[in-house]
Amino acid sequence: MYKAPVEEIAFTLKHVAGLGSALDNGRLGNLTDDLVDAILSEAGRFATEEVAPLAEIGDRQGARFVDGAVKMPDGWPALYKAWAEGGWNSLTAAPDFGGQGLPHMLHVAALEMWNSGSMAFAIGPTLTIGAIEALTTHGSEHLKTTYLPRMVSGEWMGSMNLTEPHAGSDLGVMKTRAERRDDGTYRLFGQKIFITYGEHDFTDNIVHLVLARLPDAPAGTRGISLFLVPKFLVNADGSLGPRNDAHCHSIEHKLGIHGSPTCTMIYGDGRFGDEPGAIGWLVGEENRGLACMFTMMNNARLAVGMQGVAIAEAATQKAIGYAKERTQGKAPGWQGSGMSPIIEHPDVVRMLLTMKVLTQGARAITYACAHAVDMAHGEDARHWADRASLLTPIAKSFATDAGVDVASLGVQVHGGMGFIEETGAARLYRDARIAPIYEGTNGIQAIDLVTRKLPLSDGGHVRGFIAELRDIAAKARAANAPELGETGDRLEAGVADLEAATEWLLSTLADGKQAEALAGATPYQRLFGLVLTGAYLAKGALADGGDGRSGERAALCRFAAENIIGETAALRDRVTSGAASLAAARAVLG
Amino acid sequence: MYKAPVEEIAFTLKHVAGLGSALDNGRLGNLTDDLVDAILSEAGRFATEEVAPLAEIGDRQGARFVDGAVKMPDGWPALYKAWAEGGWNSLTAAPDFGGQGLPHMLHVAALEMWNSGSMAFAIGPTLTIGAIEALTTHGSEHLKTTYLPRMVSGEWMGSMNLTEPHAGSDLGVMKTRAERRDDGTYRLFGQKIFITYGEHDFTDNIVHLVLARLPDAPAGTRGISLFLVPKFLVNADGSLGPRNDAHCHSIEHKLGIHGSPTCTMIYGDGRFGDEPGAIGWLVGEENRGLACMFTMMNNARLAVGMQGVAIAEAATQKAIGYAKERTQGKAPGWQGSGMSPIIEHPDVVRMLLTMKVLTQGARAITYACAHAVDMAHGEDARHWADRASLLTPIAKSFATDAGVDVASLGVQVHGGMGFIEETGAARLYRDARIAPIYEGTNGIQAIDLVTRKLPLSDGGHVRGFIAELRDIAAKARAANAPELGETGDRLEAGVADLEAATEWLLSTLADGKQAEALAGATPYQRLFGLVLTGAYLAKGALADGGDGRSGERAALCRFAAENIIGETAALRDRVTSGAASLAAARAVLG
Repeated sequence: MYKAPVEEIAFTLKHVAGLGSALDNGRLGNLTDDLVDAILSEAGRFATEEVAPLAEIGDRQGARFVDGAVKMPDGWPALYKAWAEGGWNSLTAAPDFGGQGLPHMLHVAALEMWNSGSMAFAIGPTLTIGAIEALTTHGSEHLKTTYLPRMVSGEWMGSMNLTEPHAGSDLGVMKTRAERRDDGTYRLFGQKIFITYGEHDFTDNIVHLVLARLPDAPAGTRGISLFLVPKFLVNADGSLGPRNDAHCHSIEHKLGIHGSPTCTMIYGDGRFGDEPGAIGWLVGEENRGLACMFTMMNNARLAVGMQGVAIAEAATQKAIGYAKERTQGKAPGWQGSGMSPIIEHPDVVRMLLTMKVLTQGARAITYACAHAVDMAHGEDARHWADRASLLTPIAKSFATDAGVDVASLGVQVHGGMGFIEETGAARLYRDARIAPIYEGTNGIQAIDLVTRKLPLSDGGHVRGFIAELRDIAAKARAANAPELGETGDRLEAGVADLEAATEWLLSTLADGKQAEALAGATPYQRLFGLVLTGAYLAKGALADGGDGRSGERAALCRFAAENIIGETAALRDRVTSGAASLAAARAVLG
Repeated sequence: MYKAPVEEIAFTLKHVAGLGSALDNGRLGNLTDDLVDAILSEAGRFATEEVAPLAEIGDRQGARFVDGAVKMPDGWPALYKAWAEGGWNSLTAAPDFGGQGLPHMLHVAALEMWNSGSMAFAIGPTLTIGAIEALTTHGSEHLKTTYLPRMVSGEWMGSMNLTEPHAGSDLGVMKTRAERRDDGTYRLFGQKIFITYGEHDFTDNIVHLVLARLPDAPAGTRGISLFLVPKFLVNADGSLGPRNDAHCHSIEHKLGIHGSPTCTMIYGDGRFGDEPGAIGWLVGEENRGLACMFTMMNNARLAVGMQGVAIAEAATQKAIGYAKERTQGKAPGWQGSGMSPIIEHPDVVRMLLTMKVLTQGARAITYACAHAVDMAHGEDARHWADRASLLTPIAKSFATDAGVDVASLGVQVHGGMGFIEETGAARLYRDARIAPIYEGTNGIQAIDLVTRKLPLSDGGHVRGFIAELRDIAAKARAANAPELGETGDRLEAGVADLEAATEWLLSTLADGKQAEALAGATPYQRLFGLVLTGAYLAKGALADGGDGRSGERAALCRFAAENIIGETAALRDRVTSGAASLAAARAVLG
């Protein structure tokens, strides 16, 4: 069973991601080190003791669609209530509406733990927090006072309605339409698919944020507006009024996250209300809906990245536990009587260490991204905003790929038992698979990274970041510590590969050769993530957490340097010379 | 829907794996090129039209355990009957017992297609064929005449009973016991788990081959004997007699291959018969059971490799089909109106080509292994037996890893739809995951490759094979064909990496440093598979299949050389220098 790795999380936040110096420099108000520890510890307890035990029943029962409503798994409504009452929904929300205004770093750490407990459970509240963020930034005073306090308290949940059957990655072609009414409201008509937690029995009301198009809107993404559409209308006194003309038509039968209802939502077909049309209120300005969504898109992507970290951590813990219990064969050098625990076999050690490295690398990258988000509100705001922008696609893609890879290794470590559902390793393998897809596929992240993030500050930002990474490599070399093995050399080689690929992409983009640059976008994204993994593990190994675990951190860092990040040379090659062969082979696909 | 790639399969068999020259040299009796084509074509038709349409219901319903019996999915018993009546069960069986005595190459090609149609269906007959092989080689005349004709015809199926709760990879510790009886029979007592097709309603009788230990047997694997234990005893006139004391206790709830019943089998608990004890007959000699199993173990491993190829092919076809239909966004250079098919986006092209390369590489390696099996019965028997031995672990591991990786990419190409079970991509992702585990985990394959296969002929065999690969690389360079890009250089570099890693392993083993060699076993196995992929794609590209597709083969070969096999340098490093860091980091795991 999962046990939240609170100490490892705290160490990574403070000594790798930057929370320590942010606290020291007074960048986080009156937040103290002790308070950080207390919050992490309690979030970890909740994830370990309350969420994780209900993961299996959530997977087995799944969300059930009965008579037009969604019945959540046994025990989940009470779990949600306990979670909201614990104040976890309000961690980062604005104090004006009942929030605690804590930094994003604490939020992502807590997110990681809840998702390790149950990804299907944690995704719902995550989306509500995103809706709170969008409303806080773009909502009118009326909308904010009516909805935010009850969303921040968790009394009501939110949902995000973007996707339509023909509009997934490309939202510009969406068809859901909104008509203006004289009273300032709108009527919405259309169908949305893949709406996570679009319907459930956790809360009395659900606040849908819906993207739709006005009749006179420009074509494409500049003609999309954002609307708030509650499941139940809210009376002036705050009590619930009549049902709005919005309902869940069906839920999907999915590979994983069975407890999370994935809804097809119908707006305005006349099932409820006097006349057809779901009543909605504009959020932000007309035709500026996508800009409103962009406010929260980056954070949503990082939140999905946390799911990757979460699954990887849960899978690693489970695999290590099994490998210590299960005996089979005699490992080389085994002196004990009988069979050795399989954790003594070198190949199993390799799998488990690979899982550890990918998990810890993904954690460090995502936390560093959250740190940049937090820092983007003070001095050097531009620098940190750029850093957050640059890190977001890497954090999302690297962490979610790690989730899939680590969960798959986790099944493998379990052998035949891994294929049996009751073991639980298979659930992680199934749950993990959606994370590289939703909130922008990892291919979309790579396009974003190469075409929008590398050019930030004319390439100056990414070059500065690479210089920081080179500095870490130099420090690892200068440490001259035997336990770091070849870390300095290997990391310097990785940074050089990253730099060469980056410069090639920047000049290729400058030459207007978009297709050539995009051909290497995914290998580049992977290359960046691997180098960051090596660098952040080295940074952690060079820091003293005061917990006597420096030796272990150095050993894991060395393993990563000598066994995991060596692919950077091949990835660099794919970026700088792979485009021609890719274009030439396109015809093979017919 | 899957369509058997009969032409690609025939090309690979004939021009890459060696079927063409074997036919030319008269090594395959009176088998003709036309007969090969006819068999492949009909096997492909059966897989496409009969098997594949029943895959989805098999997954959804699964095998069901009702009142102590297993009810197979709707339509499956009739499918099995049609399959057996088509003579597919008897392809490679000995003519003495009704078999067709065809080469193994045709068998694996047919296996690939049936597994692409439905892996859960194809695994059952595969195991029967393995049981036929074991009985043919080691069974007494009485057992052969009693059982083989009806197993070859498909009237009865077989099952293989090895695993026990504490004896998976390490069979030496199994506890199932066999007692001698005066009439020459034995009574078996024990429990076996993970028994594929241990119980079902396809056939009236099931012939279980069971490993067990005699009371006076030596400890470990030298004390294991093999027994034939029929579900129903067979009367002297061949009619079915009373039920034997063997039954299925339960079936597993698995991640994938839901249609395949995975049984816990109980032998000798007294449920059936006059006295407790399942009646069994010895196959081969007492305490030589594992040797009997080894006869077929290699072929079973290759058969599992075929499942990897099969899933990869099915996933690739499905993904290409979807990528041509689904439109989203505008790819760079897209001139059409509206959105482009996603197959025009470079990142999607990269995923699909990667899938193609891994599928085709895995196919070529497995077919080459089957070719070696076929050649091991004539002149140069020793050479080809060594080749089959060497290739088996690579074929099993590389192909099954490819199955998982390609199925995962297939889900990714489908985006959100990939996560919805009805799409079918998720089923392939689930089914694929068992193949790297059963019939010896891929980690076990790597141990076998390094410790038992590399030392064949004092390393002479592997060195000779590497020389052949270098020759292919030299030919690719000498072809001097622009469409092959850097294939010659890249492949030569890959072969050099393979050679360096091989020599390091051989000398490390010679020095008695077993643990150090094993630390790099899995990276080495992967390295070997990647180099073989590059070499076999080049061999295919340099051959003229007379089908006007040479250009496509060259383009795919170039893509593989410039985008897929570049990891060999990093893998070589892991083999030759990774052991120390692995050992140092073992402590991190607690």
